[in-house]
This record gives sequence, structure tokens and C-alpha cells, in this order.
Amino acid sequence: MKRAVVLLSGGLDSTTTLALAIAEGFEAYSLSFDYGQRHKIEIDAARRVAKSLGAKEHRVAKIDNDIFGGSALTSDVDVPKARSEAEIIRGIPITYVPARNTVFLSHALAWAEVVGALDIFIGVNALDYSGYPDCRPEFVAAFEKLANLSTKTGVEGAHFKIHTPLIKMSKAEIVRKALELDVDLSLTHSCYDPLPDGRACSQCDSCQLRRKGFREAGVNDPIEYATS
Amino acid sequence: MKRAVVLLSGGLDSTTTLALAIAEGFEAYSLSFDYGQRHKIEIDAARRVAKSLGAKEHRVAKIDNDIFGGSALTSDVDVPKARSEAEIIRGIPITYVPARNTVFLSHALAWAEVVGALDIFIGVNALDYSGYPDCRPEFVAAFEKLANLSTKTGVEGAHFKIHTPLIKMSKAEIVRKALELDVDLSLTHSCYDPLPDGRACSQCDSCQLRRKGFREAGVNDPIEYATS
Repeated sequence: MKRAVVLLSGGLDSTTTLALAIAEGFEAYSLSFDYGQRHKIEIDAARRVAKSLGAKEHRVAKIDNDIFGGSALTSDVDVPKARSEAEIIRGIPITYVPARNTVFLSHALAWAEVVGALDIFIGVNALDYSGYPDCRPEFVAAFEKLANLSTKTGVEGAHFKIHTPLIKMSKAEIVRKALELDVDLSLTHSCYDPLPDGRACSQCDSCQLRRKGFREAGVNDPIEYATS
Repeated sequence: MKRAVVLLSGGLDSTTTLALAIAEGFEAYSLSFDYGQRHKIEIDAARRVAKSLGAKEHRVAKIDNDIFGGSALTSDVDVPKARSEAEIIRGIPITYVPARNTVFLSHALAWAEVVGALDIFIGVNALDYSGYPDCRPEFVAAFEKLANLSTKTGVEGAHFKIHTPLIKMSKAEIVRKALELDVDLSLTHSCYDPLPDGRACSQCDSCQLRRKGFREAGVNDPIEYATS
């Protein structure tokens, strides 16, 4: 059975990506990170999702928080709320975390080489996304090239492939795909700034993009929001 | 004053690289990793070196050990000893750590963006080296390209540069350069498998390459070896 490492935050996109990898027949090694994000709720969500979807192994890798200083997701800066769609898709937001997907994919690459996987899945999305540079196809292509130059596996002739099955999908298409694959979306967590009781804030960029996706798919979002 | 992040293991090469960055006028942010390597002696060496050379800040980032499983440097596999020079330079050795420099450089990139540095130094060497794929010029070029695609800084028009001042130098030239820059090489540590008292084993690939460098430079190595 072919193995794949799947980056899993426990949100809508990475959860659907994990379900897709498993549906394609991969034995999935899911990988989450504890990098000092403001809330640990997403780490719990990732664990639940990995178990529910049947990942072969799930790992939470700790990353030195200070390396990522200076983002609204890792420091005391306020997460912006209730921005218009035009604001959300314009420029790079304050929730940008320096080099995050480069760090995440490099860990995935190391772990892939250790477990003997040649396939790495990441749920980046270039359509309904938040303007992060490390979610674009050219970034993914550059990482794939690097992966094959930098590893024993790559140099010896095997080929690492970075899969981005969601890259051209709208949020509504992602919601529909998840339901088609029988994913329990009540287990997922997308909010950047949840309430202490775990409910999503409904107003951050991530909540807004998620709600737009469910609305356009004509489906009820099963998670609880603080307001709606 | 321009800032640079410098990867520092506390060995001969990275120490000389830090001295070169400082000599070029950079304010240096040196970065070491605790990744479950078999001995912590090199982490102490890096701290001593950073202090001695006057790094502005030194950080030891912890990396999840399990991600890197399966190398003689991070697991119970024996470090090979007393290999001939031909054996050392042929193929990729058992001391290879999966995707190590990709993981290290991605952390350096994140920290560089946080501290406002555009320059990253890494002491890789393609001449007297141990056959690691992630020490080659094509790997470094691919990472530099990735760095500029994956970051806010890169996308907004500034340019990250990965400096590899040692890439074409022999070990003897590196020793001479270090002495020219008044580096105290007694503070450095290169051995893969030191004795409990901290002395270098003298027989691992890293000790052999280091000793060859000092021998060819006609200089005494100030560190203590178990045998000589």
C-alpha cells in the first residue's frame, strides 16, 4: 500500500485533503504542528479528524514558537474581524505566519523519507484563499523541485510528488467534495480566534471564507458559531 | 546595520561561516537546533562560539526528534568509524539525516523574516564533504528560489539571499580562513560520536575530514581527540 504524508490542521481544507488521499488508496500519515498558535483547539480537531478518517498514524510536531513570531496567529496582535471579501482577498493579511508552509512541508518531507512515502498532500487553495504567498502553485512547484534535490530518496532516482488536490477548487466545491466522501465536518475547526468554549467567532477571515463556502454549496455548516 | 541569520552547529565550517558573516559587516542572528542528535555537546559548542564571535542573538530551536528518525546521528545505529577517504566521499552515508538542511533553512527563513534579515548563511561545502545531497549548490539555489516565492518579503519585492561562503573551499582553506579571522577553534566541535568526557572520537567521517583539513593546512588542531 502506498504511503502518503498529509498535512492536517483540522480545518475544512486539510480534512478534505486527507479524505481525498485515503480515497485515492494511500495509507495516510497525518502531520499537525504545535507552533504556539493562539488556540490549541485546532490541534484537538486534527487529532479527531485523523482518527475519524482512519489515518494510519497521526503526529503533532512541536515547532519553536519564537521562530514564527510576529503574526496575529502566534502573538498578541488582534485577529482582524468582519473584513469585506475585497479586503480579505487583497494583499497579505496580518495572519500571515513567516514561511509557515515552507517549514511545514520541510517537516513533512523529512517524515516522508523516514516512513518511506513519496507522496505529500497539502490542502492549499489558490481560489478562495487569504492571500498567503505560500499557498500558490508556483510555491508548491518550487518545493517539489527542492524536495527531489535535497533528499537521498530524490537523488537516488525516486520522485517526491506534492499533491494539492484543492488548489483550483472553490470553498463550495471543497464542501461538496467533503460531503461526497462522507467526511464528518462537525469535527473540523477553521476559526482563527475561537471563543474560550471552542465556538468559532464567525467574523475572522477563515470563518467568513468557510461560511461563504457552505452558503454557496447550499449546505448547513454543522459547527457552532458565536453569532450567525 | 544589515542583519543575517547564520546556521550554526558549532563545528569548524559553520563557525567559520559565522565569522565570515560578521567580518562582512552583518549583525548576526545565529541559529542552532536541538533535534535529538546523540550528543548535546555540539549545542554547547554553538553557544560558546556565538558568544565568542559576538552574535547579536543566538537561538536553539527544538525540532521534533521523530520527524528525523532513522539516521545514525539521531538513533541507535552505530556511527561508522575509520572509513577510508574513498569510502567517505562515495555515496550518501548512514549519518544522512532526512531533509535536514531543508528543515534547518526553512526555520532560518522564518526567523529571518521575523527579525528583518534578507541574508541567510549556511556553511555547506561541496568539496571536502560527506556526500549529503542537501550540501550541493543546486540545492542551495533551489532553496533561494523557494524562499523568494514563499514569503511576504519575497513577494513584496525584497530578495532573500542564501550565502554559502565555504561551498568551494577545501577543509584546509577553511582552517586557514578561520585562523585569518582570529576564530578560537578550540571552542568548536565536529565529532559525530564524542566520548562521554567530550573528546572527539577521531575516527568518524567528520573527525577524519577535520583532521585532514588541519593536516593539509599545516596547523595543529586545538581540540582534544580520544586517540591520534
